Amino acid sequence: MLTVALAKGELTKSSIELFKSIGLDFSAFLEPGMRQLQIEDPTGRARAMIVRNKDVPVHVEYGQAHLGIVGYDVLREKKANVAQLIDLGFAGCRLSVAVKQSSPYQSALDLPAHTRVASTFVNCAREYFQALDLPVDLIHLSGSVELGPITGLSEAIVDLVATGTTLRENGLREIDVIFETTARLIANPLSYRLDQDGVGAIVEKIRQQIHP
Amino acid sequence: MLTVALAKGELTKSSIELFKSIGLDFSAFLEPGMRQLQIEDPTGRARAMIVRNKDVPVHVEYGQAHLGIVGYDVLREKKANVAQLIDLGFAGCRLSVAVKQSSPYQSALDLPAHTRVASTFVNCAREYFQALDLPVDLIHLSGSVELGPITGLSEAIVDLVATGTTLRENGLREIDVIFETTARLIANPLSYRLDQDGVGAIVEKIRQQIHP
Repeated sequence: MLTVALAKGELTKSSIELFKSIGLDFSAFLEPGMRQLQIEDPTGRARAMIVRNKDVPVHVEYGQAHLGIVGYDVLREKKANVAQLIDLGFAGCRLSVAVKQSSPYQSALDLPAHTRVASTFVNCAREYFQALDLPVDLIHLSGSVELGPITGLSEAIVDLVATGTTLRENGLREIDVIFETTARLIANPLSYRLDQDGVGAIVEKIRQQIHP
Repeated sequence: MLTVALAKGELTKSSIELFKSIGLDFSAFLEPGMRQLQIEDPTGRARAMIVRNKDVPVHVEYGQAHLGIVGYDVLREKKANVAQLIDLGFAGCRLSVAVKQSSPYQSALDLPAHTRVASTFVNCAREYFQALDLPVDLIHLSGSVELGPITGLSEAIVDLVATGTTLRENGLREIDVIFETTARLIANPLSYRLDQDGVGAIVEKIRQQIHP
């Protein structure tokens, strides 16, 4: 049966709406108190699992899900072996470098060598600073990265910025954008190439919804 | 000022109660709708930050917090350079190997070579299977590890087990315990050795609460 991997959190609602627009209903995941991690569409034609953002590419890479919807930021960070098929346009934000409001630095290149940079996106941050030929000391945090400059753990952070409210509330200022990110439709390369369980037709329907 | 790092989630309440019993009140973190990540004790003698489990040892290692409370499982997985001072006894659970109810395997040693094992604790799992001289293919997930055997992503999982309810609900069976874990009081080694900001007296008070 065709199986899709959905991401818990900000992407859930838009992803479910997209599948609904092509006739697959996974809205049971939005019911309050829902604890199941896997459900079937009421017509029995497809199944969906709901997992953490970062786990979507894992389930797709190993083929337990044919398709998945996940942010480009996760794909860049995890370097999963999946086919990136369609830019879905929603959940737009950017991965940025930020420092304290009071900091003298106006761009990432102004940062002194061996500046401490805290991030949950250490791979993306490492690549970015390597491309600038600027050696930095990366500190891997799992969340609340904005605490870095507040507590003095790090001079700078690399974090996702949507509206900028979190940065402002924490007295931080964006100095560079590393890349823009949106939700992407991804597929298991083999399933997609062999058109297993009708995955090709589903992808085509989604493409027509996005680029009518 | 003395600063302590508390872990969001299951440890929060017991950690705050412990500090309250020695005269430091961080219960503002328990108020509904609380968004601040750092607060001061009302007497102004100490500060607390609340961060993800895995980030507690990071803030303590880098010295932004003198003390922290975190599970032994996180310390084993992250191998942070912190001083482990006191076993606090609460938040007990175990890191275990589990397989499907229907699986023929009765212990980790029964698993065939190159079995796929899903876990959020990949370092602990790697060490355990290396000590058994059993090569396994580890799959790093960020959450909902119990999906592994259900979807066929992995034959086994390595995950924290408290009551066993999650395993049972997902048709899984524990076959080996890797280690038992409880909450630990940790300190920045240098702060503790130099007795910065009265950290020694606080540790002594906690020790008397735990081992009166």
